[in-house]
Amino acid sequence: MMRQIQKQVAAARSASKRLAIASAEQKNESLDAIAHALRDQKSLILEQNRKDLADGKKAGLSTALMDRLKLTEQRLEAMAGGLEEVTRLPDPVGEVLEVTDGQKNLRIEKVRVPLGVVGMIFEARPNVTVDAAGLALKSGNSIILRGSSSALRSNSVLVDVIRRALADTSLPPEAVQLVTDPGRETVRELITCKGGVDVVIPRGGPGLIRRVVREATVPVLETGAGNCHIYVDRTADPGMARNIVINAKTDRPGVCNAAETLLVHQEWAEKHLGSMCEELTLHQVEIRGCSRTRQHFPQSVPATATDWETEYLEQVLAVKVVDSLEDAMDHIDRYSTGHSEAIITEDDAAARRFLQGVDAAAVYRNASTRFTDGSQFGLGAEIGISTQKLHARGPMGLRELTSHKYRILGSGQIR
Amino acid sequence: MMRQIQKQVAAARSASKRLAIASAEQKNESLDAIAHALRDQKSLILEQNRKDLADGKKAGLSTALMDRLKLTEQRLEAMAGGLEEVTRLPDPVGEVLEVTDGQKNLRIEKVRVPLGVVGMIFEARPNVTVDAAGLALKSGNSIILRGSSSALRSNSVLVDVIRRALADTSLPPEAVQLVTDPGRETVRELITCKGGVDVVIPRGGPGLIRRVVREATVPVLETGAGNCHIYVDRTADPGMARNIVINAKTDRPGVCNAAETLLVHQEWAEKHLGSMCEELTLHQVEIRGCSRTRQHFPQSVPATATDWETEYLEQVLAVKVVDSLEDAMDHIDRYSTGHSEAIITEDDAAARRFLQGVDAAAVYRNASTRFTDGSQFGLGAEIGISTQKLHARGPMGLRELTSHKYRILGSGQIR
Repeated sequence: MMRQIQKQVAAARSASKRLAIASAEQKNESLDAIAHALRDQKSLILEQNRKDLADGKKAGLSTALMDRLKLTEQRLEAMAGGLEEVTRLPDPVGEVLEVTDGQKNLRIEKVRVPLGVVGMIFEARPNVTVDAAGLALKSGNSIILRGSSSALRSNSVLVDVIRRALADTSLPPEAVQLVTDPGRETVRELITCKGGVDVVIPRGGPGLIRRVVREATVPVLETGAGNCHIYVDRTADPGMARNIVINAKTDRPGVCNAAETLLVHQEWAEKHLGSMCEELTLHQVEIRGCSRTRQHFPQSVPATATDWETEYLEQVLAVKVVDSLEDAMDHIDRYSTGHSEAIITEDDAAARRFLQGVDAAAVYRNASTRFTDGSQFGLGAEIGISTQKLHARGPMGLRELTSHKYRILGSGQIR
Repeated sequence: MMRQIQKQVAAARSASKRLAIASAEQKNESLDAIAHALRDQKSLILEQNRKDLADGKKAGLSTALMDRLKLTEQRLEAMAGGLEEVTRLPDPVGEVLEVTDGQKNLRIEKVRVPLGVVGMIFEARPNVTVDAAGLALKSGNSIILRGSSSALRSNSVLVDVIRRALADTSLPPEAVQLVTDPGRETVRELITCKGGVDVVIPRGGPGLIRRVVREATVPVLETGAGNCHIYVDRTADPGMARNIVINAKTDRPGVCNAAETLLVHQEWAEKHLGSMCEELTLHQVEIRGCSRTRQHFPQSVPATATDWETEYLEQVLAVKVVDSLEDAMDHIDRYSTGHSEAIITEDDAAARRFLQGVDAAAVYRNASTRFTDGSQFGLGAEIGISTQKLHARGPMGLRELTSHKYRILGSGQIR
């Protein structure tokens, strides 16, 4: 007997062929219809979400997880508005990326096409269901969603609303599939379904991502952790450094583009590190300092080796004094997760060296790492932030959900 | 104790940092130096190759494998000439792909960068050692080569010549590493070395590729088999169809872009299939025909189900009569490996439908599938042909060995 998930993959695959040739208008109409349905069905959606929340409370989910799980009228409206924003983005499919005059007057066109079937494995946040479905549909892809069991009722009602909305449009409802079996085995089936699924995107904690990377035979778009550094160089403007560090650490500490470690050039540290740490403390940031940091700010907690590799995702900052730009870059090279790394400097040569030498998706001069984000980068919306180097790196929008094919037009050419 | 392969990865990684900032001139000088050394050391290289050949003969390698293993003066010269060709290709590194005006006047530049460390796992052909090293170096990457044990002496002497040539240039010899331990375990170490190796490219038979895809945690650029189809539509020009089919099947049957299955519209088959099969037979092609093919050409061997999925790589062609374009596309959808698929037709609407609907790296109208090749596509040289959709699809040249980073230039911006 064919397993449920294989049926879903086959249905998604078949739907993807219709999506691949859908016009921008058809896709936009469908997204609008989904946005409308989300608003229309909000009581139904919130009711199911309340049941997930009640179960979550009984199961003792953390406050942070409960907050991620929770839907509100406002959050639903943001999801609907997000879909409408995606309708305003250009359709990536069909774009001719290059034309080459091949040998013997062959015309070789490189054309953007959808990936086909996208598998998305994610934890908690039910808004991902709607965001990911919207981006997948606009880029001409089917999507198979596998959320966590704690959000199963919320995800189910959302997918149900999406599919019923699609049924009244020209796009096939089978383009959006939800895996409802909570067993771990379904994840394995999805990520090893070569030929059926074209890419899997894991979004969640490091455990989930490691498992997907290890077990997948389908190509993975890895969205990773952000152990982001800010290096305050010898010549950094003190006011600018202060603003950027406080913003990168405290604006939203729970997200991957927040700063986790501050590296400070010793000369700058002599003059300004003490007062900067004091100000961070006033912003409720706990300082974990190296021995030299503690000379400037004795109140700081002594940093241990694990602090340098920890993505705190809370109001904690590791601080280390370094002798030089090279020392800062060596530290980053060792501990960076390749997400976002910044230098604060007035020295053009130092900036150039840092921006060229640091290996990360986003390298900054004199700005907060918090800008690594699809909407900030002008992508409109993002399906995650890739920390791998293959295919996509940094915020992934519509174009990152596409591939290309070569279309070769001849008049009888042979080799 | 650190294992040999981990040492090699660490050395390659460290060298890749120097390569990433090398100028085009430095890289070209190094390639020229290698080309020179290959010519200079040809007796030494051929001597080591003869030992591999002698062992291969004893071990009973097939004629095809022996031919792939064999180096000659002419083949060495082609390898050296290939490197010189790569020097004439533009340096992909540092290219600014896009500039975005981000929020608050942030300047966001998307810049092309090397991947870092490329792992290459390949069978037999020692020329891959030189070709891959040349493309990796020019694109600013280190490369770790793991060839088959039957070519170990040939690969060793080639890597030795390359590294000694690099030692006299400004690029680090450690950028090119050869894994000399023939155990299967070394492959596993290489393809699970996340953080050390940025991508692995397997080139070889389906067994090798399946194993790498299954076991790798490092992202894989899959170079796949080519079960390529030619569909002769109702309106195909008979002379053109004949030329293309004969060329695609017989020009070089052992390569992945050769045709393996011919699909013929029934109306065209009525008039022309018999004579086409006869002509193919004159070109020493064995026809494996479906029942309707055999009505037109009774001498053909009856095709079985496995014929449709077989990449013969020899002078054998499976032939099937279909009722319509849609039937042809369904057959291709089922059996295609996503490499190269062609339609021969005078009908623009049919061509459009085929080119849009068939999911493959290269889709052709009225030309031989044999053109799917880096040099034919104007890439200059290729490191393989990707049949996956992520990152690279179709022939992979220098640009496919690069990634990008975002370089963000601010003046104190915070969110």
